[in-house]
Amino acid sequence: MENLDSMFKPKSIAIVGASRDPHSIGFSVVKNLIDSKYGGKIFPVNPKADEILDLKCYHSVLEIPDEIDLAVITVPAAITPNVVEECGKKGVKGLAIIASGFSEVGRTDLEDKVVEIARKYNMRILGPNIVGIMSNPMKMNASFGPYLPYPGKITMISQSGALLIALDSRTWVDRVGMSYLISIGNMSDLDFADLIDYFKNDEDTKCISLYVEGIKNGRKFIDVCKKILEKPIVALKSGVSARGSIAAASHTGSLAGSGKVYSAAFKQATVVQAYTLDDLFDRSLALSLQPPMKGENLLIITNGGGVGVLATDAAEKYGIPLKDPPEDLKEKLKQIMPEFGSAKNPVDITGMASAEWYGKALKIALQHPWVNGVTVLYCETSVSDPRELSMEIFEATNCNRVDKPITVSYIGGEVTERAIEWLQKKGIPVFRSPDRAISAMAALREYGRFIEKGFDEFYRFEDVDTEAVRSILKKIKNEGRDYVTEVEAKAILEAYRIPVAKTMLAKTKEEAEELSKNMKYPLVAKIVSPQVIHKSDVGGVILNIKTPEELVNAFEKIILNVKTKVPNAEIIGVALQEMAPQGTESIIGSTKDVQFGPTVMFGLGGIFVEVMKDVSFRIAPFSKSTAIDMINELNGKAILYGVRGEKPKDIESLSDAISRVSQLVTDFPEIKELDANPTLVYEEGIKVVDARIILEK
Amino acid sequence: MENLDSMFKPKSIAIVGASRDPHSIGFSVVKNLIDSKYGGKIFPVNPKADEILDLKCYHSVLEIPDEIDLAVITVPAAITPNVVEECGKKGVKGLAIIASGFSEVGRTDLEDKVVEIARKYNMRILGPNIVGIMSNPMKMNASFGPYLPYPGKITMISQSGALLIALDSRTWVDRVGMSYLISIGNMSDLDFADLIDYFKNDEDTKCISLYVEGIKNGRKFIDVCKKILEKPIVALKSGVSARGSIAAASHTGSLAGSGKVYSAAFKQATVVQAYTLDDLFDRSLALSLQPPMKGENLLIITNGGGVGVLATDAAEKYGIPLKDPPEDLKEKLKQIMPEFGSAKNPVDITGMASAEWYGKALKIALQHPWVNGVTVLYCETSVSDPRELSMEIFEATNCNRVDKPITVSYIGGEVTERAIEWLQKKGIPVFRSPDRAISAMAALREYGRFIEKGFDEFYRFEDVDTEAVRSILKKIKNEGRDYVTEVEAKAILEAYRIPVAKTMLAKTKEEAEELSKNMKYPLVAKIVSPQVIHKSDVGGVILNIKTPEELVNAFEKIILNVKTKVPNAEIIGVALQEMAPQGTESIIGSTKDVQFGPTVMFGLGGIFVEVMKDVSFRIAPFSKSTAIDMINELNGKAILYGVRGEKPKDIESLSDAISRVSQLVTDFPEIKELDANPTLVYEEGIKVVDARIILEK
Repeated sequence: MENLDSMFKPKSIAIVGASRDPHSIGFSVVKNLIDSKYGGKIFPVNPKADEILDLKCYHSVLEIPDEIDLAVITVPAAITPNVVEECGKKGVKGLAIIASGFSEVGRTDLEDKVVEIARKYNMRILGPNIVGIMSNPMKMNASFGPYLPYPGKITMISQSGALLIALDSRTWVDRVGMSYLISIGNMSDLDFADLIDYFKNDEDTKCISLYVEGIKNGRKFIDVCKKILEKPIVALKSGVSARGSIAAASHTGSLAGSGKVYSAAFKQATVVQAYTLDDLFDRSLALSLQPPMKGENLLIITNGGGVGVLATDAAEKYGIPLKDPPEDLKEKLKQIMPEFGSAKNPVDITGMASAEWYGKALKIALQHPWVNGVTVLYCETSVSDPRELSMEIFEATNCNRVDKPITVSYIGGEVTERAIEWLQKKGIPVFRSPDRAISAMAALREYGRFIEKGFDEFYRFEDVDTEAVRSILKKIKNEGRDYVTEVEAKAILEAYRIPVAKTMLAKTKEEAEELSKNMKYPLVAKIVSPQVIHKSDVGGVILNIKTPEELVNAFEKIILNVKTKVPNAEIIGVALQEMAPQGTESIIGSTKDVQFGPTVMFGLGGIFVEVMKDVSFRIAPFSKSTAIDMINELNGKAILYGVRGEKPKDIESLSDAISRVSQLVTDFPEIKELDANPTLVYEEGIKVVDARIILEK
Repeated sequence: MENLDSMFKPKSIAIVGASRDPHSIGFSVVKNLIDSKYGGKIFPVNPKADEILDLKCYHSVLEIPDEIDLAVITVPAAITPNVVEECGKKGVKGLAIIASGFSEVGRTDLEDKVVEIARKYNMRILGPNIVGIMSNPMKMNASFGPYLPYPGKITMISQSGALLIALDSRTWVDRVGMSYLISIGNMSDLDFADLIDYFKNDEDTKCISLYVEGIKNGRKFIDVCKKILEKPIVALKSGVSARGSIAAASHTGSLAGSGKVYSAAFKQATVVQAYTLDDLFDRSLALSLQPPMKGENLLIITNGGGVGVLATDAAEKYGIPLKDPPEDLKEKLKQIMPEFGSAKNPVDITGMASAEWYGKALKIALQHPWVNGVTVLYCETSVSDPRELSMEIFEATNCNRVDKPITVSYIGGEVTERAIEWLQKKGIPVFRSPDRAISAMAALREYGRFIEKGFDEFYRFEDVDTEAVRSILKKIKNEGRDYVTEVEAKAILEAYRIPVAKTMLAKTKEEAEELSKNMKYPLVAKIVSPQVIHKSDVGGVILNIKTPEELVNAFEKIILNVKTKVPNAEIIGVALQEMAPQGTESIIGSTKDVQFGPTVMFGLGGIFVEVMKDVSFRIAPFSKSTAIDMINELNGKAILYGVRGEKPKDIESLSDAISRVSQLVTDFPEIKELDANPTLVYEEGIKVVDARIILEK
């Protein structure tokens, strides 16, 4: 921690590369530190200057007489290693490397070198390729951004420098208050997880807000975030569209668009997601100002039916659908509105509503135990002054001892703008449309749900036979294969106590007949060959074999078919499998994500996955409870819970299996892909009928 | 038309109910007309006053010496009929009735009376229950809203008065320019369609923008809108969530949520839809200022990678996904950016980009034939002044003789705000986030698609046998039934040349045997009884009957089963049906929408409809081309186009049948519900296997 205090709460800053050229970054950083009234010591460093902006300039960090907490490095990339070396010798604690020209343009070598030197001297690095660090509590603009952001309680970390500078200015227009605004750049050393871990303890930060293009160490990110339930984290991920993502080769992989994997990761990390830049600002603002919504009951108070309906639509869209309030609450509300008002939800106190009516309605709502959060909607009218309304709202929430969140939407002109400004300064987030006020409340609810549920603690299944898997994988490796036969894949699953349809490998028809003595007819026979992926297409599968005679015929026929259709196929044998009874088809799959490592996918069989893309993802490993979340995320989940009068399927066994797969792929990182497809789900139990595993080369 | 000119371009206005009480609406309207510098004559009318705001006041409209184009009526509801009668006698042409207290509070009688009187005198009514009419070109604020909206080219019609007043003020904050801002109220006479029909010819209106809570005459709305391709119409529909919609009883009906029906109607009416209030403003602004996007190629020019990626995501979300530009365009663009820029789409001219670079890139883009529209993204930086950028953009688009649309996103502070204001005044729509600039462009593209496609002209199928249907329906009516047997339902479909599985009704087992002589075995036998809806559940269906003997047995068994399980069932007989070969299951359905009349639904069979709710709707009647659109809207459409190497199904015959159903339910409004479920789709042809029709009581 010590080192990061040096970075974000430094007592002294050296600007290495300080300059007298007013168009240079080295000049801007010095000037910005002075302009922002930074209270610590500022040491410009430039071998060719003696004074910059009235400050004594040193020719090298080594010449500085005092201790240096943070060095902001603005020299070109090529000489950065030398400068970092000097900083190390000087005993500098933290480095903010502004220069670009490192890994982002392919110069990973240069970046690695800088990191290596920093590690040697125990220095932490922010960057390179950053704008810098802005801190309102420290009055520190250690960046080349123009000024400190509008003050507030959000700490925002942005992976885009250009966006950060633009948003910095924008905070003053939107009056969205920031504590810190930090450019994270190439993340050569400090990454999102490190900064989150630091700012979770920062008392000036009420909400951590992220603009993410890509996370480097996905597991670390999840592990750090999910333990920080006391402080909301909100993230906007860019690049979720198809055009941004790499076309993946395998069947499961083709569905693992990075957007889906990030959404899953954010859920597991208990990070609230934002969906647009406006939404990131809106949600961050609400989360920085308001408590979480602890329950599902949102009450809307409005003076306009139209905006009330729009908010009702939005509440459904954002996952906090409105409910009817209890009678006693309705009764109380009715007393402060005219006859033609409505005490249903949304509560319409009518266009005649004065600021005072709003105040009364809001107090009633906040004091009622049924209400978990309130969104106030206001259309500017001639009978109500928005400034008075702001005062009423502030007063009503100020005596709100029940810690319930409130979001507000005002629609109106210049006077309304002033009323928004005033109320926002008092800590109530105000938006300019009902949709956005509801989205902000939905973020507060999502955070509330994370708190209620806690993070997913994964406990290993101890009844698994890792040894058995290890020896199968060893055998495959020893034989120089990366192809895993179906029989082996099923044995691996079975070792993790995932139920599979009994399957044996027969190399000859005689062996087939012999093996079948210990199996239950009817059987299925399937070709086993690394070259044959789509077995049915080449006549490599025969179903419903009822007798040993039929089995022998089937064996011969399959071999003949494959030899004819795939002449170069290496035939390992024929897999004999007991026919599984009819059940609901599902698929459990796993692929590896570049950032997050092994992921698990679940979907309903066939068409649901292939055509409807109705699948859910999680990062492995995870508990059964998370597996149940995966099931419940499917649009087609009714299939499993019983449709058309069918009995519900065995969600218990299914979620158990999904969670076990997540442990398997975590325990054995050499598994590149896994497909248990179909996995049949019954009223009691499940059975993996077909399994495929691909190993890393 | 004449009468509506009197309403919206009046030469003289009487305010009946004018008042000297500054808190009254009757006072506000007079004052607002004066303040807005209305150039026509203003006649306050009040039996008890001689002068209001320095204007001579008349005791009755009949006393006014001049002709009156428009009377704004601000008297209470109860005395409105008298006032309207007087207006009629005076020869007033148009009435804007502000008072509430009519159908919206259940006083339909009072409203009907007012309409009746107005009709008698050939007067048109706007309202009642409205705020009034605001017109910038006429400098006419004939309303109790505070002032005229920010001037511009949008004519906005709002069904919510409170929202209209609030939005009026808001136009000045957002600088979204309006020509007219009209409150439509209860639509006792003039409705959305009438106003749209009028404003299509108004030269001050470039875009018609609607806030819709409910449309009264859906068909009229569609018919009027779809013929106005020369002027874009954009609509926000509120109340699309489940909480707003009525739980419909029947299977098909339960899916016809009003949101889906409205979306369908807007498509058929060539109305661009907006999804939030912000979106309505954004899309209206873009459509009022920019030409339609005529082609799918959107180019994005940005100085920030981050916002470029966000815009790329948004482009996919809004249905205009980015494509790679041709090499020659890339070459040209590369010449105006540094080495590390990117000429791919989004075109990243880097954070070093000056206003001039933007100007050059924009000119290149607009002049290139591949480009159909450009979105410019800008993050405020120190190297580029946003005001200069605005000038460059204006200049580049000003010499844009190719009529391509442009939308812009600026992110920055106060200086950027000024630059936005300037550019917007020049006719370029600027938004504060990439997402919104892209959504606005998507609206321009949607409008472009409407123009390219033209509206759907429905030509009747002339080969249908309406007489046959009429006589079946007559027979049913004569027999006092509202229950249509399956055999009858199929005969009705057949009369419209919709292929059905051959089905005959047998009342006795002997008749069954006889009828089967003209049928192809195997057959299916199904109970025919008004009391038995779920036939299989009571043993009322037997499949795969191969011989006459089996048929007789089946007949007896079905009768026995039904008599046992549904003792009170009235048994009409047993339907014999030829077994249809296996095919892809689909469902064609029809229900009636309160506003739009008969609608047609299409979905893929079983699970797709029941669990995934993967269905599409249209208002009947419509052509085959619209039926193809319906098929293409399904998430599961790949099933019909061939999946897993299957051959594509007969989309031609399917769309033909869907379109024919739309004609059938239009020709016979006594059909309340229709279900052709399943309709099997083959590689060649289709076949309706089961059909159900319910008649209006």
